[in-house]
Amino acid sequence: MEVKEISQAVIGRLPRYFRYLGELKDEGVERISSQELSELMKVTASQIRQDFNNFGGFGQQGYGYNVEFLYNEIGKILGLDKKHNFIIVGAGNLGRALGNYMNFERRGFIFRGMFDRNPELIGNDVRGIKVMPMEELESFVRENDIDIAVLTIPKTGAVEVADKLAQNGIRAIWNFAHVDLNLPKEIQVENVHLSDSLMKLSYNINRYMQENP
Amino acid sequence: MEVKEISQAVIGRLPRYFRYLGELKDEGVERISSQELSELMKVTASQIRQDFNNFGGFGQQGYGYNVEFLYNEIGKILGLDKKHNFIIVGAGNLGRALGNYMNFERRGFIFRGMFDRNPELIGNDVRGIKVMPMEELESFVRENDIDIAVLTIPKTGAVEVADKLAQNGIRAIWNFAHVDLNLPKEIQVENVHLSDSLMKLSYNINRYMQENP
Repeated sequence: MEVKEISQAVIGRLPRYFRYLGELKDEGVERISSQELSELMKVTASQIRQDFNNFGGFGQQGYGYNVEFLYNEIGKILGLDKKHNFIIVGAGNLGRALGNYMNFERRGFIFRGMFDRNPELIGNDVRGIKVMPMEELESFVRENDIDIAVLTIPKTGAVEVADKLAQNGIRAIWNFAHVDLNLPKEIQVENVHLSDSLMKLSYNINRYMQENP
Repeated sequence: MEVKEISQAVIGRLPRYFRYLGELKDEGVERISSQELSELMKVTASQIRQDFNNFGGFGQQGYGYNVEFLYNEIGKILGLDKKHNFIIVGAGNLGRALGNYMNFERRGFIFRGMFDRNPELIGNDVRGIKVMPMEELESFVRENDIDIAVLTIPKTGAVEVADKLAQNGIRAIWNFAHVDLNLPKEIQVENVHLSDSLMKLSYNINRYMQENP
């Protein structure tokens, strides 16, 4: 199947459109023009039209976009109409926070298992899922059709765990470990390096203070 | 003071350089060429030189960069040589995960307070910090020289809390609430919308599956 090459910058903006459209839909809004969406989201209307043109434009017809149609179409593009089983490796606070976040289920991400190397955490319950020992990780991934692994472990060990997951058929890793993984290109990786984000904030604070002493 | 305009894309890459240089320093590496750094970080050497030229180039001298000097200089650019007091608003799993993350302290971010509206969480202890009720938030921010607020609360309420923080002198918000804040431009905001990142991963999984059926 031919798929048009879409830049990761455009892809990166789709979830935000999806989020805003979901809120409009929940508020009962049926139609919205690119101009109104532009004001709401604080991006230019031309950016919105350009982004949507990557996907055929979604049929803006003078009086604007149909909100529910647009929401559903962007959801399909994002693959949110499909179910993806995921596991969390690392049952610390961050792993538990993600395991407890119910909204993932609404988006088609089904929480199937949780793993930790700390014997004291084994058997703990996060939203009905018991924490399992690391020794069971590989067979669990193979036998339970797991697509996504969320890595919430320290950077030591993360590379090794990611390699094991890759060898056992994982499709994607959502990586919160403070290390860049180096995996075959068929494994999708999305890094969330929280410290990097905090450092960027620190830069912007200091820059503002220098410019406005 | 004159400050050269640097793109947010370059700023966004600095923390990753800082992270790699910190590891090289810890391993005792004293010098590194842009070529070696390029191979390690999997970005082109020309990208590295371009990025560094925004800050005067850091004195690459044929035999490469001095690792410790470069690490310290990038740290200063990121403002990591300064101390910033921060609080966490929202004492759920995510708030506790961030409060427990010791590395922030090493980067100059000092954990000063934690707040929640849930009476059952008041008084709970996270790394020596007791959770306080929301009623104390505004006076605490004013009286304790708080620069950064980490928002780990649901999206309902987040906009209102952010406005209160802004009125009481906060400089920056690290926003984990699933809503875009709308604050005066003197307040720096860094959004971490975790669901957006997961949706991007979902897109990339589905795209790969369509291209490789």
